[in-house]
Amino acid sequence: MASITTNHPISGNTLISFRPKNPFLQTQTLFNFKPSNSKHSNSSFSIPIVRCSIRRRPEYTPNHIPDPNYVRIFDTTLRDGEQSPGATMTTEEKLDVARQLAKLGVDIIEAGFPASSEADLEAVKLIAKEVGNGVYEEGYVPVICGLARCNKRDIDKAWEAVKYAKKPRIHTFIATSEIHMNYKLKMSRDEVVEKARSMVAYARSIGCEDVEFSPEDAGRSDPEFLYHILGEVIKAGATTLNIPDTVGYTVPEEFGQLIAKIKANTPGVEDVIISTHCQNDLGLSTANTLAGACAGARQLEVTINGIGERAGNASLEEVVMALKCRGEQVLGGLYTGINTQHILMSSKMVEEYSGLHVQPHKAIVGANAFAHESGIHQDGMLKHKDTYEIISPEDIGLNRANESGIVLGKLSGRHALHAKMLELGYEIEGRELDDLFWRFKSVAEKKKKITDDDLIALMSDEIFQPQFVWQLQNVQVTCGSLGLSTATVKLIDADGQEHISCSVGTGPVDAAYKAVDLIVKVPVTLLEYSMNAVTQGIDAIASTRVLIRGENGHTSTHALTGETVHRTFSGTGADMDIVMSSVRAYVGALNKMMSFRKLLAKNNKPEGSAVI
Amino acid sequence: MASITTNHPISGNTLISFRPKNPFLQTQTLFNFKPSNSKHSNSSFSIPIVRCSIRRRPEYTPNHIPDPNYVRIFDTTLRDGEQSPGATMTTEEKLDVARQLAKLGVDIIEAGFPASSEADLEAVKLIAKEVGNGVYEEGYVPVICGLARCNKRDIDKAWEAVKYAKKPRIHTFIATSEIHMNYKLKMSRDEVVEKARSMVAYARSIGCEDVEFSPEDAGRSDPEFLYHILGEVIKAGATTLNIPDTVGYTVPEEFGQLIAKIKANTPGVEDVIISTHCQNDLGLSTANTLAGACAGARQLEVTINGIGERAGNASLEEVVMALKCRGEQVLGGLYTGINTQHILMSSKMVEEYSGLHVQPHKAIVGANAFAHESGIHQDGMLKHKDTYEIISPEDIGLNRANESGIVLGKLSGRHALHAKMLELGYEIEGRELDDLFWRFKSVAEKKKKITDDDLIALMSDEIFQPQFVWQLQNVQVTCGSLGLSTATVKLIDADGQEHISCSVGTGPVDAAYKAVDLIVKVPVTLLEYSMNAVTQGIDAIASTRVLIRGENGHTSTHALTGETVHRTFSGTGADMDIVMSSVRAYVGALNKMMSFRKLLAKNNKPEGSAVI
Repeated sequence: MASITTNHPISGNTLISFRPKNPFLQTQTLFNFKPSNSKHSNSSFSIPIVRCSIRRRPEYTPNHIPDPNYVRIFDTTLRDGEQSPGATMTTEEKLDVARQLAKLGVDIIEAGFPASSEADLEAVKLIAKEVGNGVYEEGYVPVICGLARCNKRDIDKAWEAVKYAKKPRIHTFIATSEIHMNYKLKMSRDEVVEKARSMVAYARSIGCEDVEFSPEDAGRSDPEFLYHILGEVIKAGATTLNIPDTVGYTVPEEFGQLIAKIKANTPGVEDVIISTHCQNDLGLSTANTLAGACAGARQLEVTINGIGERAGNASLEEVVMALKCRGEQVLGGLYTGINTQHILMSSKMVEEYSGLHVQPHKAIVGANAFAHESGIHQDGMLKHKDTYEIISPEDIGLNRANESGIVLGKLSGRHALHAKMLELGYEIEGRELDDLFWRFKSVAEKKKKITDDDLIALMSDEIFQPQFVWQLQNVQVTCGSLGLSTATVKLIDADGQEHISCSVGTGPVDAAYKAVDLIVKVPVTLLEYSMNAVTQGIDAIASTRVLIRGENGHTSTHALTGETVHRTFSGTGADMDIVMSSVRAYVGALNKMMSFRKLLAKNNKPEGSAVI
Repeated sequence: MASITTNHPISGNTLISFRPKNPFLQTQTLFNFKPSNSKHSNSSFSIPIVRCSIRRRPEYTPNHIPDPNYVRIFDTTLRDGEQSPGATMTTEEKLDVARQLAKLGVDIIEAGFPASSEADLEAVKLIAKEVGNGVYEEGYVPVICGLARCNKRDIDKAWEAVKYAKKPRIHTFIATSEIHMNYKLKMSRDEVVEKARSMVAYARSIGCEDVEFSPEDAGRSDPEFLYHILGEVIKAGATTLNIPDTVGYTVPEEFGQLIAKIKANTPGVEDVIISTHCQNDLGLSTANTLAGACAGARQLEVTINGIGERAGNASLEEVVMALKCRGEQVLGGLYTGINTQHILMSSKMVEEYSGLHVQPHKAIVGANAFAHESGIHQDGMLKHKDTYEIISPEDIGLNRANESGIVLGKLSGRHALHAKMLELGYEIEGRELDDLFWRFKSVAEKKKKITDDDLIALMSDEIFQPQFVWQLQNVQVTCGSLGLSTATVKLIDADGQEHISCSVGTGPVDAAYKAVDLIVKVPVTLLEYSMNAVTQGIDAIASTRVLIRGENGHTSTHALTGETVHRTFSGTGADMDIVMSSVRAYVGALNKMMSFRKLLAKNNKPEGSAVI
């Protein structure tokens, strides 16, 4: 499996040559930026220069940070992000994301909501065991956190999963706004306080020394009641108090004041860390998060690409880069331990696994974020990028220096491919290399110029296929407006046996998918289908993504509403033929769904069983 | 052509039954929200209720607003947005967007940068003539604005275009930060002041009574110099001073202070309107814009979907909805004249025309923005949507009430289709109806259930095709991993003559596009290719989008950098067969490019001629 050589998580802006050994390269064709060889300007005129201060990450103690300017980054991509529609990830994908978050240097990884399903519990447990015990430089180990509602069963499940980490944390929550208490919980204020207090105490009593408590919908809660309940949970042993703007309702000044008032009025608050969790319903989550930090919050809850339910959460990349660019000047000297050079790769990985596309004009990580315009550059512009760029692309891991390296052609051999992939950051050997070489040759025969992006697309397609249940061998299609679309498909099963089937359909994809269904015989619904060309030109490789839901559905429990939600599975495929890439993606999604089932069968437990 | 019945532009939240007569319906399958019949809650417990105050839009005077709480919305989708990579729109598309902006009730429409190319000049002129003379209720007429650099030629071109509007405005700008003055302008401070002063005076002298001035890169300019130059242009006759955070560098408090200081220190500032223009490089544009308004700005420059160069601009929908939701409570009672019920349709139109996709978790207009989760709703959730929703979907025009109306099947006739389309908001007759009916029948024969979204996709495909140069008749394709991909294409030219060609390729799309090229014989580069399924299920209609650039390129001049940029052209196609939809999109893009040329040929002028 591909691996990555990681820089020190808080190496800041020391530009060590960055060589990802991971299928998500830091560059993509979408990024039009062509770097000159010069580093971001150190020019003599007095404009603010974007620099990350290189400081040591302070020692971790749950309820205390020795450096008052250090801000912890709490990433909830795997919990809040993963529960957004269609974003289901497999255990392997979650583990990949968690490893990447550790490379980024995230202080706390919220790995899931273990009580929601057995699959979630297993994933959090695996992450706690592997990533929560990683050996990183300077003693950095990410905290692994599991979410739990305020009940014993949820807390037991969370502890069962996170206890394997060196630094385990339980995050428990209960709603404190009138509307939520009245209509969701149907509990009185006193009952809510008692529930919160007793469950925080319970989490401490079973051995967890790092307990976070969130008053859900804090942004719309009565402030006096908030101070009271927060004071009670501090007494019960909470070490972090997270203040969520659950409905994304507040404006920055207001949210900052809420944090400041909580710090001023909550008994015992000096012994805990205050945290923010801002939803983005009005597009203000990044600003609200920064306002919270300026008002004294020292943990910021964010997700990669800002994914999450509805309009999502504050983006890790926006919050971190704002602190990096403006921390010294206008944000009170605050800083984080994030190694921003891993941002772009993290963004690509989460986009791929969650299927939640990033719009081209997304701040920091969008395809256009560093593309000033598509036309002819003038000399002056290249020499003084600072005229329009406040962040150096290299700072987030956008570095195309490799583009001029080894050039492959159709006569290139296995050795040259191996060397090129190493140059791109991929260490592949054995069967993986054989498979890639075979596909490389078939593309090289048809396409004049093979770009780095082509190789990366093929690589992702090979590496990110889940464990094979079915393997696609051949497809043949006839279609168009003059006849009946007909497809023939040959698949190979886990035992190496060939299966051939054909079908007619409304179009080539419909026909081919029906032919696959005749072989695989697992009823599914196709929810989404999308395709993009990887590079320019009509002979580009097409990358297809599909999202399916099994009719005998996998379900899990929604953290906030307690509702049962259906799991969905995505698959991707890359090929020069759009029909081939479509079928690859479909077979990939079917394999993903079937390996998900296998895991459950292995554990011999029902999934999505009711929670209290 | 389809038209729309518009509500009163400032009708606020009066829920008149909303029937768009426009191919961009207000609903899409992507929006999972299923409305109950109840209106947004008026429940008795004391949570803040989102309501737009219904007020009259004040009379328009360039440099004065009678109501101190009224904030003007200045939309620059057609200027700043349209210059972002790949977002080129044809004149007809720009006119459509301008009409839509008038329906939204935008106070000022920045229609383009007339000096950049003849095509831009023509588009601004057309918008000034038609939309700038629209007869709207209560006397509302949008101001039509044209951008010009600080030189006589630019200002003349801008005036030549906007003077036909009832309320014309010229917007001129020059950079005032040290880095821009030194490296881009190569001018001293005094020279910059003199240029600005004299050009504002010139714009007034040729008859324009509404002149806006922007000090580019104000966010990084020396404040004292800013007060000085702004004071000088006020004396010279500027009526609006726009303060751009050109590199998206400021944080909200800082930007608010900048506006407050300009209001406090600029001589004569009481006689002009202060405006904001915030880029989104750190994800803070909406918050910065609101901070500017709270500090005294009474014009906010925004774009639909937040499009624009790099990370784009502040989003109209986020800024307007934040003011609508929180204006009374926490934003000083500020309000706008925007009819928010047109937001979603505007968003869809700009997404389609610009090709800049909106991510699913985009605030307000993203596909997931109102989808709480994909699972099973509990009664309590539906009854009390306020638990997680702060904005009523109907407020932005998301209303699926029509879904349960007329149901079409394969036996439905032309009359039923006409009635259904009327129900969906489309008034089509004659050949348009004939064409749609023919395509409807071919889909109905293959697909069990024809949804509203299917009809809308077909409708968009028919209506938004540019003037025909080439029309696609038939495609036949053979492809797959076992043989050579081969495509045969039949096109019909403007004179009704048939052309047939065939080609082999690396895949079905490559083969078909090569066959089209053999007939059309215009060398182009394919820049982007993407596809999405319109609805769920494998028999869904696929919608394809391509972006091409002609090799004998159309160019225009970039407003800020003065560089020459190549124009690109997008095309879309919808069909149940992905190869068919791909070819439709390609032929559409070629037609768009060729009709763009025709316009220029008609005007008999060179395009993209050098500007001073």
